Amino acid sequence: MSAKHASRRRFLKEGAVFAGGLAVGAKTVGGQGLGSPRPGGVAAHPMAYGERSRFVQTIRTPMTMIGHIDLHGDPDGLDARTPLSELTGTITPSALHYVSSHGNQPPDIDPREHRLLVYGKVDRPLVFTLEELMRLPSVSRVHFIECIANAPRPEEKTLDEMHGMIGCSEWTGVPLSVLLNEVGVRDGARWVLSEGAEATKMGATMPLGKAMDDVLVAYGQNGEPIRPHQGFPLRLVVPGFQGKYHVKWLRRVKVVEHPYMTYWEKHSYSTRRGSMRTGPNRMSNSHVAGQGAYFMEQGPKSVITFPSGAQRLPDRGYYTIKGLAWSGSGTVRRVEVSTDGGRTWTDAKLQEPVQRIALARFTLPWTWNGGEALLMSRCTDDQDQVQPTSAEFPAFWGTSGAPHGNAIQPWRVANDGTVHNAV
Amino acid sequence: MSAKHASRRRFLKEGAVFAGGLAVGAKTVGGQGLGSPRPGGVAAHPMAYGERSRFVQTIRTPMTMIGHIDLHGDPDGLDARTPLSELTGTITPSALHYVSSHGNQPPDIDPREHRLLVYGKVDRPLVFTLEELMRLPSVSRVHFIECIANAPRPEEKTLDEMHGMIGCSEWTGVPLSVLLNEVGVRDGARWVLSEGAEATKMGATMPLGKAMDDVLVAYGQNGEPIRPHQGFPLRLVVPGFQGKYHVKWLRRVKVVEHPYMTYWEKHSYSTRRGSMRTGPNRMSNSHVAGQGAYFMEQGPKSVITFPSGAQRLPDRGYYTIKGLAWSGSGTVRRVEVSTDGGRTWTDAKLQEPVQRIALARFTLPWTWNGGEALLMSRCTDDQDQVQPTSAEFPAFWGTSGAPHGNAIQPWRVANDGTVHNAV
Repeated sequence: MSAKHASRRRFLKEGAVFAGGLAVGAKTVGGQGLGSPRPGGVAAHPMAYGERSRFVQTIRTPMTMIGHIDLHGDPDGLDARTPLSELTGTITPSALHYVSSHGNQPPDIDPREHRLLVYGKVDRPLVFTLEELMRLPSVSRVHFIECIANAPRPEEKTLDEMHGMIGCSEWTGVPLSVLLNEVGVRDGARWVLSEGAEATKMGATMPLGKAMDDVLVAYGQNGEPIRPHQGFPLRLVVPGFQGKYHVKWLRRVKVVEHPYMTYWEKHSYSTRRGSMRTGPNRMSNSHVAGQGAYFMEQGPKSVITFPSGAQRLPDRGYYTIKGLAWSGSGTVRRVEVSTDGGRTWTDAKLQEPVQRIALARFTLPWTWNGGEALLMSRCTDDQDQVQPTSAEFPAFWGTSGAPHGNAIQPWRVANDGTVHNAV
Repeated sequence: MSAKHASRRRFLKEGAVFAGGLAVGAKTVGGQGLGSPRPGGVAAHPMAYGERSRFVQTIRTPMTMIGHIDLHGDPDGLDARTPLSELTGTITPSALHYVSSHGNQPPDIDPREHRLLVYGKVDRPLVFTLEELMRLPSVSRVHFIECIANAPRPEEKTLDEMHGMIGCSEWTGVPLSVLLNEVGVRDGARWVLSEGAEATKMGATMPLGKAMDDVLVAYGQNGEPIRPHQGFPLRLVVPGFQGKYHVKWLRRVKVVEHPYMTYWEKHSYSTRRGSMRTGPNRMSNSHVAGQGAYFMEQGPKSVITFPSGAQRLPDRGYYTIKGLAWSGSGTVRRVEVSTDGGRTWTDAKLQEPVQRIALARFTLPWTWNGGEALLMSRCTDDQDQVQPTSAEFPAFWGTSGAPHGNAIQPWRVANDGTVHNAV
């Protein structure tokens, strides 16, 4: 019996599993209509796929810089920010989810041809088609994904410019632990390396413990197949870890003994310096074999989305302060809001249910008396981590430098109602 | 002081509220970019608004019949079903959310010009602009909306044909109770009538208790402004009540003493016959002043989405049965699955968190041995209501007739792996 069949017998209750191989074809399994164009232009029917109102023109903002990385001013660049200031609720529309591509066009992948290889220090390396993955146990969970470079700079003006490299979706897929159990991880394996199908083959290295915990090999986003810019047809979702772990166009998962330092990990996503904030999903002082420490888990963070930079309050009176909070370490437990620059704080109302490693929406009634105000929000998560002020920020992260721009964002409301970045 | 200003003072903590009126203009308040087209065709930038993969062609299916209502075979009709069999998770993409329009084109509403009138048996009738509504307290909640006609017929073949008149979204808006408290409901008022801006002015009549409970005046759907076919810019969301209560293009809410029987309520959404299932949100035998009883709250229901009608299992072996469950009365507490036509039942796994009056995703591992199988799912809600079989269906609803097609849906898997409607 081949290794392939042996491993799949783990799903056996009775009879053969995947006997005779899977017929890979349109709509046979899973029903996602993969590669099954309708005849005769039915898709052009006005009811086939609904459009937005012509009065709604919310778009992603293309970027020319990500943190310190110059995107060479390309106006047709492949990086764009979520228009957070114009969104409601907690779900980011897939069409408006931020994109960080490091120069990669999304590969034009035929899902019927795509394969995922799981190999390395395992008993039975396996190749999965998309239809095979859809037969396996699946979960749907809401999680945010945020770029490590999602940090404000003083010269930026709007919420979207400063904090728009985050999105939150309902992801559906197979737990990576299911696949790792299928292939059989060998003794001594401690790390998992993942790789996408794009030109530069972005890779990421995570501890085996995280891979076996809550990581998803996702094929669905907000009900639909993942969009091309988000990794169609497969994306790794690594809840709470910085964006680059969520490898798009996923095609290889390799179980290894020692960590790798991939090109981008060495370039931007690790440190060789000093000590670092400790935690189960953060490298502490035990740097990886002289290669430096990875930046992994994002910290607790919140932003006020209304009122925010470059908006204007038309007159004094009643408003609802609205914002978003999240933590890479768990669940948002509390959000406080200050309208006087941090002298006094009031608990905001959190929209239930607050989900783990997901955006949480908070609101607070506020009457603006027409004078100057300095608005701030502060997130506390269920690990008792408190979002730092910019003054507390270095101490929060340790001397290795800050892998995540989670300092409190102040907005200054001027007498004329205009709102300004006060970083 | 005008009634308008007097009422708004309920939101006063200090100073004037909405003093001098609101400047209604692009991006001034709320930040949804209403009516603010970007200069110079930025929206055409490839990153501005993400597209689907060319391999994904999932569409809504236009309808020619809704229940017993003939849509006159119009191939360009305005009614279409959600492609439930091709979706993942629980969120329905707004572009694929079912539409039941009763012949109405979506009005082309400029949100800056739209007004909501709240009047009737109240102390202070008020008119709200969209920007005023966005200043008020807001909530975001996930709820399904389902047409009362979402019932299978024996001659239909696919899940989408039979049960595709349901969608589930994250809705954001102002609680209707906030507006009703603003206008001040007078003694003796017991009903609330709502009306949309479309040609035929669809209306719905609900008890005041429901209106004060969990009803939303929604402007956001899945993060964005509501789509035109879903009611842009305002839709009433009446959790758990049949679809027609969720009035689209909402422009009037009238508080009244006695119930109205609007055209469609009389035509399709009420009964004059017999007794009816009782409950806080169902009319029991106390028919409305000789006009008949309204059909309001939907029952507990579930459907298996995979495998479902017209799909095919390529071979025997391991599969994951997947499905959706919901109840208009509350929260799904349990879903059981049978693969032998109801002789034995197994608890399926419910994806947490299960939200109130929202779609819940369930899964169950299953090994198909290659023989004939009859798959069923059965939902129990937190009111201890159990989804009926087709035999139990009349007794479940009472002699008034069944306002909601929530009988258990059986799928027959044939020896060759093809799946058939077994209603």
